Amino acid sequence: MTSPCIFCEIIAGRQPTELLYQDDLVTAFNDRFPKAPVHILVIPNKHLDSINSLSDEYQLTISRLILTARQLAYDKGLSEDGYRLVINTGPNAGQSVHHLHVHLLGGKAMPLMGG
Amino acid sequence: MTSPCIFCEIIAGRQPTELLYQDDLVTAFNDRFPKAPVHILVIPNKHLDSINSLSDEYQLTISRLILTARQLAYDKGLSEDGYRLVINTGPNAGQSVHHLHVHLLGGKAMPLMGG
Repeated sequence: MTSPCIFCEIIAGRQPTELLYQDDLVTAFNDRFPKAPVHILVIPNKHLDSINSLSDEYQLTISRLILTARQLAYDKGLSEDGYRLVINTGPNAGQSVHHLHVHLLGGKAMPLMGG
Repeated sequence: MTSPCIFCEIIAGRQPTELLYQDDLVTAFNDRFPKAPVHILVIPNKHLDSINSLSDEYQLTISRLILTARQLAYDKGLSEDGYRLVINTGPNAGQSVHHLHVHLLGGKAMPLMGG
């Protein structure tokens, strides 16, 4: 038996989590292990493993993910000081949950881009 | 007199640069100071300062940026081992060129997400 996807459980309301935003395409909530004062995840409601799973049919979902991150950054007062969006795919990037997610990080000066 | 935007100069062909991809909306080329074996920048052809400059009218541009990064990752053989997409906005994230750009990093195991 395969474990259910933790992010799908959150979207379905079976994993109690404070949602910061939800619409027909995306859902946002705080990362459980924050790496910065603000660390929000924005995810598609539909289960997609990673960026590798994307195609033209998901254009609206992709833009909604980014525009939602932008709006949450604004709502959290990060627009001027800045913020970082990160999308990890696969083992070399340390992707730990195999449901596509955009990290929104801000609230402190971050190290120059970890190459 | 304001200096011209270096990325606009590249798009216009006034700054000799090997282009990895270009279409009606986006352009991709190698970062001049690579932080990983593969370090590509994907940028919108239209000058937009940062994520803060985005709105619903740029939905197609946003999705094209991400889908182009996905395709280049595939072309470079990164899909399985993994890759990281990073978009820096403002001083706290160390955004150095004020023309929106998506970093595509891969070809090595990267440190856990620099928070």
